[in-house]
Order: sequence, then structure tokens, then C-alpha cells
Amino acid sequence: MQKRVFQLLVNNTSGVLSRIAGLFSRRGYNVESITAGATAAPRITRITIVASGDEEILEQIEKQLAKLEDVRNIRELKPEASVFRELLMIKVRATPDQRQSVIAIADIFRAKIIDVSPESLMIELTGNQQKIDAFIGLLDGYEILEQARTGIAGLGRGTDQIVYID
Amino acid sequence: MQKRVFQLLVNNTSGVLSRIAGLFSRRGYNVESITAGATAAPRITRITIVASGDEEILEQIEKQLAKLEDVRNIRELKPEASVFRELLMIKVRATPDQRQSVIAIADIFRAKIIDVSPESLMIELTGNQQKIDAFIGLLDGYEILEQARTGIAGLGRGTDQIVYID
Repeated sequence: MQKRVFQLLVNNTSGVLSRIAGLFSRRGYNVESITAGATAAPRITRITIVASGDEEILEQIEKQLAKLEDVRNIRELKPEASVFRELLMIKVRATPDQRQSVIAIADIFRAKIIDVSPESLMIELTGNQQKIDAFIGLLDGYEILEQARTGIAGLGRGTDQIVYID
Repeated sequence: MQKRVFQLLVNNTSGVLSRIAGLFSRRGYNVESITAGATAAPRITRITIVASGDEEILEQIEKQLAKLEDVRNIRELKPEASVFRELLMIKVRATPDQRQSVIAIADIFRAKIIDVSPESLMIELTGNQQKIDAFIGLLDGYEILEQARTGIAGLGRGTDQIVYID
């Protein structure tokens, strides 16, 4: 089982996400995470997909993604030449008595407290998956009310860039 | 034109993302951003979708999303009762001479420098959309080599939570 990160530049049309997701599901492949957000260019969206599976099939998927309507460009982000980040928002039940010890854990990870209620703390953390998993692990003794992870975004190191073809 | 943020809990199957994206595209509606990431529960993925459009149609879409196979729960995240965050990774061309002035802008926003090459800086920033847009605006004088935005993740304030139904 390989894990691969694909970065796509696509036209921001209503059908493109559906075509991309359909391609994975027709092959029974799970998308581990997907993020889609604006680029500097209007009407161009950057999509980052993390998929795991058999290497040969992932190569076929990459080729087929490149041929899809509204897909302008695709490349693989290789771990050794890329920086990956994910954003975690997590809400922990914490009474005023417990608050300080949760804040202490957050401080170790340089996480930010972004909301406080009498019964809860909301924390924001960015990092690679290992860091985020480790942080969640440390909160094990507390009740996690909710968490949202954005999935992975990534960029190639150095001046390397993916461009869209007009 | 309304902008709505939907939060879904779904079974982590290969078809669910395709069904969700298909529902928007059949109605010609653009998904402004989508993030899909793991939850604390194995096999349950949380998806956050930002969509804009006519209010009546968005309400219909919400109802139809709720009925889709593998969608366990859906709710709208209302701005007044929620915290939204997005992660930006941006790579700017910066010679050693320009580096300090880019770092100064990053410091104002408490952004982090996450990669440096002789010709470039990579910066990570989290915040709401306005903050991220303002930061990108301040980098206007520099050449943006690449940027990736995760799209919005969000949680309800306080102890409020969305649960999945077994």
C-alpha cells in the first residue's frame, strides 16, 4: 500500500469535483483526504488529494485525472521535496478546574486556544499528520467533543511550481 | 446570494464524496471550498462544504444531502455560533536581500516561515478568510510562486456538537 499526494489545478466549475471524486470511487478507491481552495488566479482552484492503494492503480488514476475535463495540470508531491501541513480544530470538555492542564498541553505544541466556554476549550493546531496525531493522543484523558481536520495541503520546496496551461 | 457552511459526518466509503459533489454539480452549484478529514471515530469522515447561491436552493441541497447514502448527519454552521479557520501555505520569491522584509510581514500576522531556499520563502498562516486575504494582499509587491489554501474548517462554539447516528 502506497500513499500518494496529488496536486491538481482545475477550472473552478461545478462539475470538476464530481468528476474527480467519481474517478476514485469507480475504482473503489478511497480518498484519504481532500482539500480544495482558491489560488491567486481567478477561476482556478487547487485541489490536494491524498490517496492510498496499489502503486500501479495509483499511476493509472494519475494519468486519468490528467485527462479529465477542467483539469489543467496535475503533479505528485513527493514527500522528500515537499512540505505538508494540516489544520486541526478540536473542542475538549474542560471545566474551569481542568482548563490549565489542557492549556499546558496546547502550549507544548504551540497550539492556539481559539474559543473558551465554561465547559469547553477549542484549540487550533497546524503541523504534519504525525504532530497532529501526537497532540490528539495527549488529550486522551479528556472528552473530545468535536474535531475537524482540513486534510493535507502541500507545496513543493524551493522555487519549484505547478503552472496551469492556458 | 447567500453563503452557507455545511458540516457533514459521513461513512468513509469511496462513493460518498462523489455523490456529494454530484448533487451540487447537477444543480450547477459551485462548491466554494471543501475539506474532508478524519474524526475521532474510525470510518467516519467530517466534511465541511462552503457553498454560495440562492437561499431556497441551498435549503433544498441541505435536505438532499441529508438523504444521501453514507451521510450520517448534516448541520449548518451559523457564523454567529461558530469558529471558522483556514490554512494557507504560500511560497514567495525572495532573494536574501528581500528576505527580511517578507519575514517582517509574516511576523505582523504571526505567520510561520516553514521553508527557505536561496530564492524563496514558504509561509504558513491560519485564520479566517479575511485575515488570509489581507495577508496575501500585503505580499502584493512580491512574486507569489505558489499558494495552497485548505478551504474552511469550522466547529460550533461552546459544548455544542454534531453526532453521528448509528
